[in-house]
Amino acid sequence: MRMRTVNIVLAGFGRVGRAFARLAAEKSDLCRERYGLDPAVRAVFTSNGGALGEGPLPLGPYLGGGGPEDIKGAEFWRQGLRPDIAFATIEPGVLVDCTPSDIKTGEPALSHITSAISRGWHVVAASKGALVLKFREITDLAAKRGVRLRYSGAVGAALPALDVGIPSLAGTEVLGIEGILNGTTNFILSRMAEGMEYDKAVQEAKDKGIAEPDPTMDVDGWDTACKILLITNAVLLTSFGLDDVQVEGIRGISHELIAKAAQLGKAIKLMGKCSKESREDPWKVDVGLALLDPGHPLYGIDGTNKGITFYTDTMGAITVAGGKSDPRGTGAAILKDIIRIYL
Amino acid sequence: MRMRTVNIVLAGFGRVGRAFARLAAEKSDLCRERYGLDPAVRAVFTSNGGALGEGPLPLGPYLGGGGPEDIKGAEFWRQGLRPDIAFATIEPGVLVDCTPSDIKTGEPALSHITSAISRGWHVVAASKGALVLKFREITDLAAKRGVRLRYSGAVGAALPALDVGIPSLAGTEVLGIEGILNGTTNFILSRMAEGMEYDKAVQEAKDKGIAEPDPTMDVDGWDTACKILLITNAVLLTSFGLDDVQVEGIRGISHELIAKAAQLGKAIKLMGKCSKESREDPWKVDVGLALLDPGHPLYGIDGTNKGITFYTDTMGAITVAGGKSDPRGTGAAILKDIIRIYL
Repeated sequence: MRMRTVNIVLAGFGRVGRAFARLAAEKSDLCRERYGLDPAVRAVFTSNGGALGEGPLPLGPYLGGGGPEDIKGAEFWRQGLRPDIAFATIEPGVLVDCTPSDIKTGEPALSHITSAISRGWHVVAASKGALVLKFREITDLAAKRGVRLRYSGAVGAALPALDVGIPSLAGTEVLGIEGILNGTTNFILSRMAEGMEYDKAVQEAKDKGIAEPDPTMDVDGWDTACKILLITNAVLLTSFGLDDVQVEGIRGISHELIAKAAQLGKAIKLMGKCSKESREDPWKVDVGLALLDPGHPLYGIDGTNKGITFYTDTMGAITVAGGKSDPRGTGAAILKDIIRIYL
Repeated sequence: MRMRTVNIVLAGFGRVGRAFARLAAEKSDLCRERYGLDPAVRAVFTSNGGALGEGPLPLGPYLGGGGPEDIKGAEFWRQGLRPDIAFATIEPGVLVDCTPSDIKTGEPALSHITSAISRGWHVVAASKGALVLKFREITDLAAKRGVRLRYSGAVGAALPALDVGIPSLAGTEVLGIEGILNGTTNFILSRMAEGMEYDKAVQEAKDKGIAEPDPTMDVDGWDTACKILLITNAVLLTSFGLDDVQVEGIRGISHELIAKAAQLGKAIKLMGKCSKESREDPWKVDVGLALLDPGHPLYGIDGTNKGITFYTDTMGAITVAGGKSDPRGTGAAILKDIIRIYL
């Protein structure tokens, strides 16, 4: 098998970025043997510096707990170094963007992604901000430059929502989409269905490392909104922005209500939805609580699990569920995206 | 968009073949506008004759109820015409094989498929026999000749089992596979869970057109065995044959047992499984009844629904479920396979 080296520029060295780098090392034999690919992380950047190697960077000692802080002590680290230098000097491969998602400015991902595409690099994004704000601009730019843009990790970690929503449904008309796309809120609602109060369930999610210290993006529905927005734009070729999404979260919901639904054999879930009244109407995208009967394909999606159902004209309803929500699961989704760019 | 005509030779004109031909006509605008493809059914063959057109065949009047009998009355029908003439004289496109599955000889699919591949035609198979008997030979031949071989419809109609099992799991190690892959037996078991006796449930399945007049292949587990075998060979790059699969069906199972499991909140399902005791052990493929707890990802797959779970090292468990099991669903899977060959 012909071996192909894939140069990787990694932007962001937080939990996801490091999980991906660990996985790329761990899976290098598999990548070579099964896919003829040799992924080489040639550069890493954080908000205030970076590293650029002649070959693969010796990241081993920095893939543990310390993260962005630790790597600054590395011999190869350069304060103030910016990704542009990597895109300009290394043979184009893949930018892996794992920077924090900023849905107000899209930065720093937006600058990284546009710069990478302009230089002929493929892009795999795990961050949401740039894609949510400039979806059509970025996809058009990638198409024009002839590079691939993939973002499985941004819409649901290891849940293959886009794989099922696009290639698997080729030739169908999608009639609607419904997803449980945020593991944190689903965990909270599952605990509340067992009788726990909202504040306690949120605290447990934080204690277990499921929720971030500030869970606003999750509990107010914005993470779900970003995901259903990206999935809708990708699957239905729309150009919605966050302003077009009606968003309702789970904050302050009464646990009596949820427990009562559970007693009646139903489930209350935070759903991202894309729907229309009839075929002629425009699509509506919204996020809010939904009461599901046991016959609903997403009824059994409990705890931190996620799932998404696509309703089609010719294939009926197809649901995909599961997939790890943790940084390792997102790292695995990034690796999958890279492999598929070259297959 | 550049338009590309895709010449199609359709072998088999039963329920699936006709459903596919109807769908190809119905979806021709979508194929052109979204994918730049113009699928043209240029030839149709049944066991005792065929038709070959200068352009797309005027199949419209023959897509209804009558099937293979009706089309023999068509002006363009030639008694005794064989597919080889089509592969030799038309610019290569896709052989769509919808002939009946014969798991003893693999014919007539085996002859059609090898002849098509040798002439540089891609193959989309909805029939199982040839693939079950000669999986590695056929895939090797296709690889050598540089053509694509797809068979989504053969492993679960519109359920995208292979899409999730191969591209979506790229870079993972698959640790096991479990699937409810036969809608007929799952329907029968679902009715029995409600208290119905086996014979009555089988009769209802026949009356509703879910089961065939002779449901042996389904109730004795052979349909499930063929599907889990093909999925295992495709996903895990194994070369199992039917002799390697331990097969147990549902015939004569006691309805008291099933109803009792349902009362205890569990479900009894006919599962196709690929598993191993530890990483070093060889894979075992089997079909048999399994008792599922509510937490199992396939617990909620009821009625004629199907579903499959892939267990992986880095992405956790991923389950895909649903997708129509009828000829139209299989036709949609064939159309998807064709589109993806050219994308």
